[in-house]
Amino acid sequence: MIIRRLNTKDADFAAKFSELVAVDSSVDPEITRRAEAIVEDVRKRGDEAVLEYTNRFDHMDAKSMEEFLLTEEDLKKALETLPEDQKQALKTAAQRIRSFHEHEIGQSWSITEKDGTKLGIRYIPLDSVGLYVPGGKAAYPSSVLMNAMPAHVAGVGRIVMVVPTPGGKPNQLVLAAAALAGVKECYTIGGAQAVAAMAYGTKTIPAVDKIVGPGNAYVAAAKRYVFGTVGIDMIAGPSEILVICDGKTNPDWIAMDLFSQAEHDELAQAILLTPDAEFADKVEESIKRQLPNMSRKEIIEASLKNRGAIIVTDSIDEACRVADTIAPEHLELSVEEPEKYADKIHHAGALFLGAYTCEALGDYCAGPNHVLPTSRTARYSSPLGVWDFQKRMSVLQVSKEGAEKLGHVADVLARGEFLTAHSASSMYRVSELEKK
Amino acid sequence: MIIRRLNTKDADFAAKFSELVAVDSSVDPEITRRAEAIVEDVRKRGDEAVLEYTNRFDHMDAKSMEEFLLTEEDLKKALETLPEDQKQALKTAAQRIRSFHEHEIGQSWSITEKDGTKLGIRYIPLDSVGLYVPGGKAAYPSSVLMNAMPAHVAGVGRIVMVVPTPGGKPNQLVLAAAALAGVKECYTIGGAQAVAAMAYGTKTIPAVDKIVGPGNAYVAAAKRYVFGTVGIDMIAGPSEILVICDGKTNPDWIAMDLFSQAEHDELAQAILLTPDAEFADKVEESIKRQLPNMSRKEIIEASLKNRGAIIVTDSIDEACRVADTIAPEHLELSVEEPEKYADKIHHAGALFLGAYTCEALGDYCAGPNHVLPTSRTARYSSPLGVWDFQKRMSVLQVSKEGAEKLGHVADVLARGEFLTAHSASSMYRVSELEKK
Repeated sequence: MIIRRLNTKDADFAAKFSELVAVDSSVDPEITRRAEAIVEDVRKRGDEAVLEYTNRFDHMDAKSMEEFLLTEEDLKKALETLPEDQKQALKTAAQRIRSFHEHEIGQSWSITEKDGTKLGIRYIPLDSVGLYVPGGKAAYPSSVLMNAMPAHVAGVGRIVMVVPTPGGKPNQLVLAAAALAGVKECYTIGGAQAVAAMAYGTKTIPAVDKIVGPGNAYVAAAKRYVFGTVGIDMIAGPSEILVICDGKTNPDWIAMDLFSQAEHDELAQAILLTPDAEFADKVEESIKRQLPNMSRKEIIEASLKNRGAIIVTDSIDEACRVADTIAPEHLELSVEEPEKYADKIHHAGALFLGAYTCEALGDYCAGPNHVLPTSRTARYSSPLGVWDFQKRMSVLQVSKEGAEKLGHVADVLARGEFLTAHSASSMYRVSELEKK
Repeated sequence: MIIRRLNTKDADFAAKFSELVAVDSSVDPEITRRAEAIVEDVRKRGDEAVLEYTNRFDHMDAKSMEEFLLTEEDLKKALETLPEDQKQALKTAAQRIRSFHEHEIGQSWSITEKDGTKLGIRYIPLDSVGLYVPGGKAAYPSSVLMNAMPAHVAGVGRIVMVVPTPGGKPNQLVLAAAALAGVKECYTIGGAQAVAAMAYGTKTIPAVDKIVGPGNAYVAAAKRYVFGTVGIDMIAGPSEILVICDGKTNPDWIAMDLFSQAEHDELAQAILLTPDAEFADKVEESIKRQLPNMSRKEIIEASLKNRGAIIVTDSIDEACRVADTIAPEHLELSVEEPEKYADKIHHAGALFLGAYTCEALGDYCAGPNHVLPTSRTARYSSPLGVWDFQKRMSVLQVSKEGAEKLGHVADVLARGEFLTAHSASSMYRVSELEKK
């Protein structure tokens, strides 16, 4: 079996389906314990502890924290010295991501009532944000753009990047992406120690207000632990793609779209839903034919075998209903007239409409963010965006006349809650009462 | 000492100030352990466990879950049978909160590029939300309005409320507020068991997608534990007020504003910043004079003594800078021409401008939400709002021409990340290549 086949008509579909989409959210308590110990140590000993852990885990021999610092100039130089095709591709992607995210900027607003009372919401960029970038093979320049650009567009004053360099040499594409996305300060450190340094601050690295970006289990545990001291983004699970196809897209395209998710990780999930059983056969055949040529064939094979599926449905409508229960990170509606079905999808991180809109275009350069809710969290959460780097503040300015009117309302409700200072504070502003 | 006095000029100000504003975010591991055990038990045994824990902790003798159900009719009846002044005050507050929050509704948008490529963001209400309401004395009808109304305005399909009734009798004001805020389903259960029931679902209570609302340490621990399975709102710390006053507001008003926060909780924090040392004396005198008349004088006294302060500053400008480092939940700028200073404040949950805008008006009926970031989290987080009950989905529809252009960009970047299936998937959409 290269990929499991289900049919919504099968008697045991419900059971097999729920087994397929079960989310393993278990956390290794030993990793949590070790990550938390590192965080507490960095909190206590600062730079000294960061230096020790970095030398130990990343096989470095640094004498001081300064050796880990990369300046804005270092990042710009990385961009300038890239091969021309990479430089241009990165610039095009950065420009498109920037331009899309500019539409996401929240605008302050206020309303003024007849009595002069003004009420509104002010949008304010965060002061400082820390971006975690994994080292080694999983160091994705596209993720640097996707994480840092919305912060940059939001107007965050200070964007710090950390990226471990266990081999010693930083990935030039990653540094170039950082230069394009407004990063001006970078440290070649990683792991729980880097998260702790950004959360609590050290002598070398001033604390930030929020930490974003993907990382391994230690990084995730450290982020969870420091949450509250700083803000964090979501903790991402394995990547997922769900393709709904009417059978009219080239089966090789669909097979490759499934591969493009499966190649990330053996735990990634790639699912095809189609009402066309013959098309299902064709995609399976294409998977078998194309797989041997893929550079990451072992990972793809394991992912498809463990967590992949082709599900034959009654109709496109039924496929949309099944997809909604999965709430996938990425959903391709590879059908003719996708607009007819788009509104039937309520739960997905990103929706890709039509055969030409493959997920990979969204991953790199279409413009929308590729950091998306996984593990069914699209039911209640959203892509990373400028909204994650602006906060809102309520602003209230009640007029004398307004205070008189509202004071009586607050008074009644405060007494109903036995909060008499709230009541007195409101009634002090009621002018008739003052005159008594 | 009724309240501590600091002066920014004092040699030991920095040390005393950081002691004053230190946040104790420690969590009792024993409470966490017990809450998690209850959650896991409810996850396993469902209704049976909820029934057992509710009977045990709330001293009930229910035979079945049905006894905990309150229907939409029960809620409406509670509203109808309220005393007229309470009914009117609640309706006015509900209407104002609704009307303010309607401005917060996120609107879907999309842009169309020259080549026909369409990119955008769709806003979608959550399917279902659970609202936790504490029982007993801390059952605040205003909190029901503030938590449920934004969900209702967002268009959430199902809003479930849980409220424990350890005495047996539910608070009629709470039920009435629920009726006004679109709650149609209510259970008189509470604690970690209620959180677990809403997160995982039981036979009687279908699972929700997000849980909001304040609760005790068990509820907070349970919410933290189920996060990921469902969304949660922030975990609130003790309430805080910071008043900046130029000395021109009636000192009795300011003293009462400090009381209105202090009366919540012995751990609540009330701080006055003023450049006018004589005014500081007057407020202190007013505190001494008014305190004995307050119904919650013991709580107020403890709060002011433990965590309160009057801080004399150099200027209003300096007061704004000090306030910004505290990032308080509520900030009153009780000065003449508050507009001159408002933009100097970057970190606060809600900003109250001018002497007539006391916090209590915002707590009950001005319109903006009273669920606000505490414990310095206003540096990176926002008031509760419609944005917490709508999620966003990216929608991409790349045209044939757009795919050709973007495909080459994605191809270069994907190869830079050694993700060749991403590259092949993109290049399948490049038409020149197809012709080869």
